[in-house]
Amino acid sequence: MADCAICCGVTGTWGLLPVVSPAPVIAQVTNTSQFIVHVLVSERFRLAEITIHTVENRGAMVEEVTTPDFDTYIAEQSIDAVEICPGWVELIWSDGQISRFHHIWLRDNCPCADCVHQGTKEQMFELVAVPADIHPLRAGVTAAGSLAVNWSSGDHTSEFEAAWLRANCYRDQARRDRVHQQITWDANTWSVPPTFDGLAVLADDAALYEWLIALRTYGATRLRNVPCTDIAIGDIAGRIGIVRETNFGVLWDVWSEPNPVTNANTALPLPPHVDLPTREYQPGLQFLHCLENEAIGGDSILVDGFRIAELMRDEHPEHYLTLTTVPWSWANRATTTDYRWRSPLIVTNGDGVVTEVRVGNWLRAPLDVPFDDVERVYAAYRVWFEMSYRPELQLRFRFQPGDLIAFDNRRALHGRSEFTDVGGRRHLRGCYTERDELHSRLRMLERDMRRRAVAAAGI
Amino acid sequence: MADCAICCGVTGTWGLLPVVSPAPVIAQVTNTSQFIVHVLVSERFRLAEITIHTVENRGAMVEEVTTPDFDTYIAEQSIDAVEICPGWVELIWSDGQISRFHHIWLRDNCPCADCVHQGTKEQMFELVAVPADIHPLRAGVTAAGSLAVNWSSGDHTSEFEAAWLRANCYRDQARRDRVHQQITWDANTWSVPPTFDGLAVLADDAALYEWLIALRTYGATRLRNVPCTDIAIGDIAGRIGIVRETNFGVLWDVWSEPNPVTNANTALPLPPHVDLPTREYQPGLQFLHCLENEAIGGDSILVDGFRIAELMRDEHPEHYLTLTTVPWSWANRATTTDYRWRSPLIVTNGDGVVTEVRVGNWLRAPLDVPFDDVERVYAAYRVWFEMSYRPELQLRFRFQPGDLIAFDNRRALHGRSEFTDVGGRRHLRGCYTERDELHSRLRMLERDMRRRAVAAAGI
Repeated sequence: MADCAICCGVTGTWGLLPVVSPAPVIAQVTNTSQFIVHVLVSERFRLAEITIHTVENRGAMVEEVTTPDFDTYIAEQSIDAVEICPGWVELIWSDGQISRFHHIWLRDNCPCADCVHQGTKEQMFELVAVPADIHPLRAGVTAAGSLAVNWSSGDHTSEFEAAWLRANCYRDQARRDRVHQQITWDANTWSVPPTFDGLAVLADDAALYEWLIALRTYGATRLRNVPCTDIAIGDIAGRIGIVRETNFGVLWDVWSEPNPVTNANTALPLPPHVDLPTREYQPGLQFLHCLENEAIGGDSILVDGFRIAELMRDEHPEHYLTLTTVPWSWANRATTTDYRWRSPLIVTNGDGVVTEVRVGNWLRAPLDVPFDDVERVYAAYRVWFEMSYRPELQLRFRFQPGDLIAFDNRRALHGRSEFTDVGGRRHLRGCYTERDELHSRLRMLERDMRRRAVAAAGI
Repeated sequence: MADCAICCGVTGTWGLLPVVSPAPVIAQVTNTSQFIVHVLVSERFRLAEITIHTVENRGAMVEEVTTPDFDTYIAEQSIDAVEICPGWVELIWSDGQISRFHHIWLRDNCPCADCVHQGTKEQMFELVAVPADIHPLRAGVTAAGSLAVNWSSGDHTSEFEAAWLRANCYRDQARRDRVHQQITWDANTWSVPPTFDGLAVLADDAALYEWLIALRTYGATRLRNVPCTDIAIGDIAGRIGIVRETNFGVLWDVWSEPNPVTNANTALPLPPHVDLPTREYQPGLQFLHCLENEAIGGDSILVDGFRIAELMRDEHPEHYLTLTTVPWSWANRATTTDYRWRSPLIVTNGDGVVTEVRVGNWLRAPLDVPFDDVERVYAAYRVWFEMSYRPELQLRFRFQPGDLIAFDNRRALHGRSEFTDVGGRRHLRGCYTERDELHSRLRMLERDMRRRAVAAAGI
């Protein structure tokens, strides 16, 4: 806090106490089992004033604080101290953690009814409506434990629920804690993808949650015991979100046909691939549900494309550079559509983290890159394909009727060995949805858990 | 051609003539109105052999050459000469243009029935099936004018239709010629978006093509005279491709509601925005069709986000850097879904070309970036919003029933002024589809034009 030259604060039942600015003070709150104790102190923690409310009448004393969303936040920590610094407001929490929120960030996130439509929870406030140097005149903690800020412009006061602030703290560690873990795998990790019960997933949100966490973490999962009907796969995908329609339809079949429109619907082997690399928006999640499998051959293959990317980066950095920077071209071959897209095989974000792979042998369009790049691109692609065939990277397993694999289509490459269906059919049903449908569903399940936890605590 | 140390070639009715390698020779073909003249020459154009076929019996003499797709290519130029160079094959065309195709590129694109499934036109060939140093033993032009190549590995011969090769040439100029023009605009360019007749678009492919070229070029268009029914917008979007279902449904309404789930369905002003910046995959195209507009106010606003990006780059390079590299966070506020996404406002591709913008004032989530980035991000966003309000950048016009605006949702920001519907309703219908549906439809229309041109020429 040494870099905070100007501090002011106020506390108690916000708006009723006399303003104590510009004297440098800090609002400090401690929460005991019996009392909420509001302590107005200087920056050297000089005791200035104490307001005590019993916990019992707390609910009646303060208005409910709103958040700019429909979520529920669990107040595990309270705000011990508030300090207004030149560019930000600093909060010290009851566990000692410090959060710093910039003035403009706080003003921008004001959840009041003038700033946020209370029916939609969407902002009406616009940045350009306030000066860039807007800053707090006063800041303190209310009787409800919220942060209240009175602004230098617009005669405006904002009140922020403490737990919402804590959940949106952007200090480095808090930001790291919000990153979801993604764990790569290969044939030494397991022989089949993490497996869950399909009937439980259909019926029970806890089972759904467990499955979806695995899907997000590993990008490949299997369900067993999924009813062998034509629409069951839609029911499973519908547990996550909206099923995406493509040129294949909404729910589609994978089987050997006399007049196929895709190599998937032949008995040919399929090298490890993603579906629809030809689309700008590759489907995020794919589901394949086995209804029949009497064919000879046709083993299923899954390879973690992110693991290949790791190996490529470590073993062949020059190819990794090529695959992350030079686009290949992809094209669907059809008489009704002509989707094409160009993209590097390995896509990374601004931090260099691999976010997706894009590869499918039989959907490669003629390479269209500068002449001098052609040889290095082919060299890199060759190594990619060789790696995707490494036995130690491939899960190989056989579908049983009722099995369903659900995987991140932009991460887990899938394929199959050649088969013959003279003696009996191999019939899968498939569909797609998107990654952000998965993330949305997980957030909604977690929101529901929080809501039930708060309700159970009787808060 | 000075860098070609080893050359060989053969010509005539491919496979029947004696092999003339490894003597350095070039196969040269000229096509007159009466004759196809195959000339076997050295690299110094020494005349070696001439084979003459009359045009009349050409069709009977040669097998039809296949291409690895379902497209039709118009042979405007023929191959005059073929030279095998160490890393590539060089073609000299009848107009003097030179194409160079790497050996591995040609082998990879072999369209024969062993390499490409002739029903699906998808590759069965895999790169790893041939050595990296595969090269032609012989190359020449067939009686049909195609390029034939016999390979050093696999006892394999490939035959490439000349017009297909020309269409897939990857010399720098050819690659530049394939880039679609995108032209930015503002209120000085026009007062309303380029306007087309909706009934014609529904009925006629030529009108459809004209409209879609404008949509691709400018990212904003208007149709008039679209039937005022609830489903007409689906018919219009269906002329392009599959309508995308979102949490708003497939076809949705924009009007002021008593219990809105989005600010769009209030009477509030809407700052220039894209729809669904909260989704990883922002919809590529948006359609808004006016069925009623008796409201006072509610003028429509369109701003070219790519023009703002240009201005930002020129006037505020420091903000441009921030907006292209530091992600903002976006979140939908709902009780049924919780979509969130983080992305820079301006997205550029590997060449620094702006490919999309992502902005919507009321869908901004709490900013979640490293502490030290917060102030510069807010400063840059402020300038973005200020620019989007510049009168000289905003098209402002009033919807009439039957009007439909179709725009690139990731480029053209749309908005509206506040309105009151006490005296009469403002009712729009909307839907989304994707950019690559547009590109696919344009390719299919162009494919159809080529097919009809070839048919009309009686070839």
